Amino acid sequence: MFRTKTCGELRLSDVGSEVTLAGWVQRIRKMGGMIFVDLRDRYGITQIVFVNEHDALLTEAASKLGREYVIQVKGKVEERASKNGNIPTGDIEIIADELTVLNPSVVPPFTIEDESDGGDELRMKYRYLDLRRNPVRRNLELRHRMTMEVRRYLDSLGFLEIETPMLVGSTPEGARDFVVPSRMNPGQFYALPQSPQTLKQLLMVSGMDRYFQIVKCFRDEDLRADRQPEFTQIDCEMSFVDQDDVINTFEGMAKHLFKELRGVELTEPFQRMPWADAMKYYGSDKPDLRFDMKFVELMDVLKGKGFSVFDNAAYIGGICAKGAAHYTRKQLDALTDFVKRPQIGAKGMVYARVEADGNVKSSVDKFYSQEDLQELKKAMNAEPGDLILILSGDDAMKTRKQLCELRLEMGNQLGLRDKNKFACLWVVDFPMFEWSEEEQRLMAMHHPFTHPKDEDIPMLDTDPAAVRADAYDMVVNGVEVGGGSIRIHDSELQEKMFEILGFTPEKAREQFGFLMNAFKYGAPPHGGLAYGLDRWVSLFAGLDSIRDCIAFPKNNSGRDVMLDAPAALDAKQLDELQLALDLKEEK
Amino acid sequence: MFRTKTCGELRLSDVGSEVTLAGWVQRIRKMGGMIFVDLRDRYGITQIVFVNEHDALLTEAASKLGREYVIQVKGKVEERASKNGNIPTGDIEIIADELTVLNPSVVPPFTIEDESDGGDELRMKYRYLDLRRNPVRRNLELRHRMTMEVRRYLDSLGFLEIETPMLVGSTPEGARDFVVPSRMNPGQFYALPQSPQTLKQLLMVSGMDRYFQIVKCFRDEDLRADRQPEFTQIDCEMSFVDQDDVINTFEGMAKHLFKELRGVELTEPFQRMPWADAMKYYGSDKPDLRFDMKFVELMDVLKGKGFSVFDNAAYIGGICAKGAAHYTRKQLDALTDFVKRPQIGAKGMVYARVEADGNVKSSVDKFYSQEDLQELKKAMNAEPGDLILILSGDDAMKTRKQLCELRLEMGNQLGLRDKNKFACLWVVDFPMFEWSEEEQRLMAMHHPFTHPKDEDIPMLDTDPAAVRADAYDMVVNGVEVGGGSIRIHDSELQEKMFEILGFTPEKAREQFGFLMNAFKYGAPPHGGLAYGLDRWVSLFAGLDSIRDCIAFPKNNSGRDVMLDAPAALDAKQLDELQLALDLKEEK
Repeated sequence: MFRTKTCGELRLSDVGSEVTLAGWVQRIRKMGGMIFVDLRDRYGITQIVFVNEHDALLTEAASKLGREYVIQVKGKVEERASKNGNIPTGDIEIIADELTVLNPSVVPPFTIEDESDGGDELRMKYRYLDLRRNPVRRNLELRHRMTMEVRRYLDSLGFLEIETPMLVGSTPEGARDFVVPSRMNPGQFYALPQSPQTLKQLLMVSGMDRYFQIVKCFRDEDLRADRQPEFTQIDCEMSFVDQDDVINTFEGMAKHLFKELRGVELTEPFQRMPWADAMKYYGSDKPDLRFDMKFVELMDVLKGKGFSVFDNAAYIGGICAKGAAHYTRKQLDALTDFVKRPQIGAKGMVYARVEADGNVKSSVDKFYSQEDLQELKKAMNAEPGDLILILSGDDAMKTRKQLCELRLEMGNQLGLRDKNKFACLWVVDFPMFEWSEEEQRLMAMHHPFTHPKDEDIPMLDTDPAAVRADAYDMVVNGVEVGGGSIRIHDSELQEKMFEILGFTPEKAREQFGFLMNAFKYGAPPHGGLAYGLDRWVSLFAGLDSIRDCIAFPKNNSGRDVMLDAPAALDAKQLDELQLALDLKEEK
Repeated sequence: MFRTKTCGELRLSDVGSEVTLAGWVQRIRKMGGMIFVDLRDRYGITQIVFVNEHDALLTEAASKLGREYVIQVKGKVEERASKNGNIPTGDIEIIADELTVLNPSVVPPFTIEDESDGGDELRMKYRYLDLRRNPVRRNLELRHRMTMEVRRYLDSLGFLEIETPMLVGSTPEGARDFVVPSRMNPGQFYALPQSPQTLKQLLMVSGMDRYFQIVKCFRDEDLRADRQPEFTQIDCEMSFVDQDDVINTFEGMAKHLFKELRGVELTEPFQRMPWADAMKYYGSDKPDLRFDMKFVELMDVLKGKGFSVFDNAAYIGGICAKGAAHYTRKQLDALTDFVKRPQIGAKGMVYARVEADGNVKSSVDKFYSQEDLQELKKAMNAEPGDLILILSGDDAMKTRKQLCELRLEMGNQLGLRDKNKFACLWVVDFPMFEWSEEEQRLMAMHHPFTHPKDEDIPMLDTDPAAVRADAYDMVVNGVEVGGGSIRIHDSELQEKMFEILGFTPEKAREQFGFLMNAFKYGAPPHGGLAYGLDRWVSLFAGLDSIRDCIAFPKNNSGRDVMLDAPAALDAKQLDELQLALDLKEEK
């Protein structure tokens, strides 16, 4: 062992002892006949002092150290004259007797400090240096503690962690698969799992009763801001349960994690909001409930007064921003620009301020009398000093989604989205299907194995689009951190589902034959859930992106810029796989 | 919840209580006016009794149940008249009041019993049924407990579990990679990791200090009996350590696992055997030390007596099988056939029996006097009743490997390889390189990042084949359960290593540039180890193959016969990947 102590553990009580430390040179200061070196490792920073009077040769050697050199120092722990209250080792320092340079370092391309001067690209290329920085390292430590706690908790409830294969079959339904050519079976491919969904269902058929796995999943999608081609799921499944059982189990786990990792005690049961309400009141299936600003439908209030935009609208909805009546015209114009951005797509925005005297001033005053506006104020439950923002459109669902963006933006602007406050809820009663414009057919909203609500099963034949599912998402601060469902365990119902989804019996058998077959041998009622580990960690760490809770993430082109992967293959490798490139012209 | 209790938990103290159970029908027996159903779940079996006098309709319904039906039963716990001491619930039974068939089952293709009548192919195709069998389920439970214990142990020592990416770059050095075409980067491929070797080294450069990960690894090799294309490693790395530190840490972990999972206390330090000794005395770098039968070199004893086979041999070695002099001519002929099989390749075998009176009778009596044979007896340390078996050949290493096979076979035949006995050792001082006939160059015996022994470094220039490495394997009962090394942390030494391995500087930079570059920024001394999880579990479970400690294994052609993967891709998928099949004619 190159050390007797770490750089984080020495205290006043160690004064007088001889120690050996090893680590990285964080900082060097020369003062008179002394050289001070901050020595860093994962556990902390300890001040080393080289004293010229004590050992001139050694001090000479120390003067040649550079940033990020790896050194080993032997010396005596002494009490510091001027203590540093900011670090746990701040009461002591080491008077060096021996110095060994274990490895020199060239000058790093950015500073290894909490606030680095490295840009994103540079930090990713030299990720091994970026990981030396406290904030990034702490994210990985948090991730480790989180997976330890998840496993402890689920183990205590009798869940078994069971590894499912990474090389599985491709299922063109759903997102795109990453595929893996099989050399031993030329012309054939494995797929990497988008989730172990069907395999965990088979584990239930096999009687495993309670399964979990912290597992890598893969999706070959065009990457949006917070997506990675590989991500990690806390994947769970239980037998002989209904929706309440699953929700209670994993709400218990979430509360446990909040307590252990963030010291937050959540004692109340999480709200359970039907999907229809979430859409109606927040325009989103993952509402951020850290703040109110609930949608109010204003069709009755604002229609028929001659303002054609509203008169022709299929939906008019408003939000009330408490105390934001002070918004200037410029700020309001910026908000209008915000909702008109192509990503959001609203046509415009109407606003109304409630003034100190209770009067309402709006951007559409010429169409509405003060009386009308007082009705609006009442409907919005607005008070003096409040700002009312209104959107309308000819597609209610689209307009709600636009209003949702506006609501979140107002939450940001008014500082209502505090990262240290947590609002958790379950969104339940999701629709079973959604209509795909692209495919011109019903698609499964969660996946084809989701159990419809018992009371809605008769509607499968008459009005499938109205059927609700035993499906649920957990939402924290507007982020979907997990979701799941009760699964179909009846092979006839499963066949019917495939039929509604437009699978021919042959296609269904080809893709999911193994599952439908398994269901004939005594499948228990079962259901489960998958939590997104990356999202949980970034939530607990207060990160804006999942990227910094992943040791070696990929960029938005799916590239690992540090490894320079993906890359071209040797011709020999392609040949062995009996594959050829078929590159298309650049578009 | 469909149940109030599991099928494994009711005891005499529960008599009188009303319970609801759910599970699978294991067995049905009809006796007079009663039907007995053994109800099974993961936790055990409980006897359910349907009594005609008590409820005739219910008993009628129960008579229609079949094997593996999933049912829910409500009833009262009663003390059994005739108790079953073989199962923990054997004191009680449930008198059924209600029965719900949750799912019927068609007749399974094999019996769900400890000893199944299903052949290997059938069991794999219906793996979800096979997993219902106690022995297979217990293996997965053991695997779960093992990973829990590993994590607890390493966490307590300050190791962080850090996930490394699954989509990495391909490195043609070593075994063949599985590759993954990148749609977003046409013509380029990721590789699935053969191990996180370079990434964990980068984590050491990043100061993570102590890393572990239980992680899937992939190798596209032609599958031998006990290989799987995907397998699981307990992958570990530490900074500021030397070989002793790593060995002590992971020997501690092994002892902990033996104690927790098998109740075996291993108090002595594990033997550390130099690789050269392992080869000399056991003909293997993974000797099975559950039994002795050490090789004795017999060149001095047996040469020069006119037996040309021995006279011309480069190596003559023998083993002494205690008490096996009773072996018949037929048995000895079978042993000769065994060593002559092409997989082993010996030319023949010489034997000598030590008779009760101390005389030695050999198969080469015409060349050797009794005096000569007494010398042999002495050299072999043989006693009356012992059997001496001798092999010779013109390549010492090859002959030792043949003798190793013979030794193991004798161990089997004499019952010396008890699965409940554990012999652990470290094999150390591996050669740095081995000569590849195929490539006509030196190859790294472990991998190119292995640190040579300090005292052997000067020989890198003069006699690289003689250089030993700071590399170590842990061997249990003749199985290599793990191995590792101290790594090179000096970029100059690493460059020299690549040079000896025949890499041009360009090639080295292309493949490992990121690592060599990282080493310039202050790499700490580091080393580690990887344990094979599958092998550990099969060792603890007493399995002959790793397959039955894996939930969904692949067969020898790399196929998952249950999922029927790999399979052909949709033309659209290939097109999106800008790939074409280039299938060769069948050979």
